Amino acid sequence: MLEVSHISKSFGSKNVLQDVSLTFEENKIYGLLGRNGAGKSTLLNIITNRIFPDTGEVKIDSENVNDNDAKLGLMFLMSEVNLYPNGSTLNQIIADTELIYGSFDYAFAKKLAQKFELDLTSKFGKLSTGYNSIFKLILALSVPVKFVLLDEPVLGLDANHREMFYSELIQSYTDHPRTFIISTHLIEEVANLISDVIVLDEGRTMLDQPVEEVLAKTHSVVGPETDVTAYTKGLNVIGHDNIGTIRVDYVYGDLDDRQLPDTVKISNFDLQKLFIFLTNQFEGSRHYEN
Amino acid sequence: MLEVSHISKSFGSKNVLQDVSLTFEENKIYGLLGRNGAGKSTLLNIITNRIFPDTGEVKIDSENVNDNDAKLGLMFLMSEVNLYPNGSTLNQIIADTELIYGSFDYAFAKKLAQKFELDLTSKFGKLSTGYNSIFKLILALSVPVKFVLLDEPVLGLDANHREMFYSELIQSYTDHPRTFIISTHLIEEVANLISDVIVLDEGRTMLDQPVEEVLAKTHSVVGPETDVTAYTKGLNVIGHDNIGTIRVDYVYGDLDDRQLPDTVKISNFDLQKLFIFLTNQFEGSRHYEN
Repeated sequence: MLEVSHISKSFGSKNVLQDVSLTFEENKIYGLLGRNGAGKSTLLNIITNRIFPDTGEVKIDSENVNDNDAKLGLMFLMSEVNLYPNGSTLNQIIADTELIYGSFDYAFAKKLAQKFELDLTSKFGKLSTGYNSIFKLILALSVPVKFVLLDEPVLGLDANHREMFYSELIQSYTDHPRTFIISTHLIEEVANLISDVIVLDEGRTMLDQPVEEVLAKTHSVVGPETDVTAYTKGLNVIGHDNIGTIRVDYVYGDLDDRQLPDTVKISNFDLQKLFIFLTNQFEGSRHYEN
Repeated sequence: MLEVSHISKSFGSKNVLQDVSLTFEENKIYGLLGRNGAGKSTLLNIITNRIFPDTGEVKIDSENVNDNDAKLGLMFLMSEVNLYPNGSTLNQIIADTELIYGSFDYAFAKKLAQKFELDLTSKFGKLSTGYNSIFKLILALSVPVKFVLLDEPVLGLDANHREMFYSELIQSYTDHPRTFIISTHLIEEVANLISDVIVLDEGRTMLDQPVEEVLAKTHSVVGPETDVTAYTKGLNVIGHDNIGTIRVDYVYGDLDDRQLPDTVKISNFDLQKLFIFLTNQFEGSRHYEN
């Protein structure tokens, strides 16, 4: 179990993370969502000891990870920042990675490189944005760690490569269950992949729940304007659309047993839409759960 | 009308574009889709005279655009490449852009900057990836051109900013109809925005049709494996899924009047899925329309 307790971090006068506490359980796939600047990358860097928090701590199985090589070796962070020398071949970087992590699934890495048509004798510095991501994903899926942290894993990938990555991730997870933490702006594409969703907003935890429970609380209420607004009165309406005389109210939370008029229809809406409404500064007050 | 006739272009031994001919009509929104490396950016750069084709020509209203300032002034290309000096403020870049294009919709640009929370007194070089895109989008929507070409417009934008951009684009198009050509990897997000879809594949035109017509030809055929394969025999099956004993065949093309078994259900599938199947090298032979 990976525990993040009361982490705060400022850069200059900007409070990037404010008292964030989270628990990542074994063999779950977490989606870490947030606006640009919400603190996602900072959190992933703090978890893996690349930068240090002002206050708070990170523990694996109750042991602080700080300067703790045994615990740090259980985590791998794939991030946008390039840590590898441009002049090294991909094979050399794989060999160096094995030195750090003790073993490496060469067979799997080769199979993935073939599927993605990546030549492992290429130099790292020569890779396009898309292939840079692909190579780092191959590393992340081939190291023997318990916690795989992916920061914007599909940046620059075309639709085919994204789909291939998601399906390889599921296969790899099925073969060797472990914990994934995936930070991404392509929310709908991971909605069926993740078991739990965490939303950071301006450095604070806004949501931390199983996806199924979150989606069960989304209700789009569609019908004639007066009927819809009468029905949703007092409910937690987080956004709305108007299409001519038809109104859609987006509700987040449990519906009580109020009477539904025949003219009004209710269905669920998707995770990306929920995220946008919850984190949109123009939709009025924010709706924190924690 | 913007016409691209028989454009070919090689870089070294690589044929990036091979005899591409396309017509962009006035006041339509085109989606220009393709795998990484399919030639989309090269085509957009050739159209706007930033690079020159080996053969072929680009015309606006029957006049070649080559070194033709009057015609080139009718087009604006927003691309990933940064053409602006890092030390300039955004306001200075706007003033320079107005010098080139003759006028600039300051009121609209200011409104957008406010909505996206972009400070126009910032220096261009200080913008994050997301805000770099946002600023270039504001320029693209505020110049008085007939053809707006957008290359990966939402790169680095979070879900809220992407949705805001799509809705501002529709509003701007409604207020001042003109032609948009949008190249993007986020196909599902633009599927409802574009009127026509162009797919480039390895430098050639694979598809060039109204979205509605394209989607009407997509059929996912779901049911017990033997019933499905018997039904789709002879049809243009471009992909399939197996979920236990259930099979899904993805058909692209017209269905004839063959008898549908009761066990089999047919519905349409989405543009991103179609794109992936059509351009996937692992799904066997390719399916060209032109």
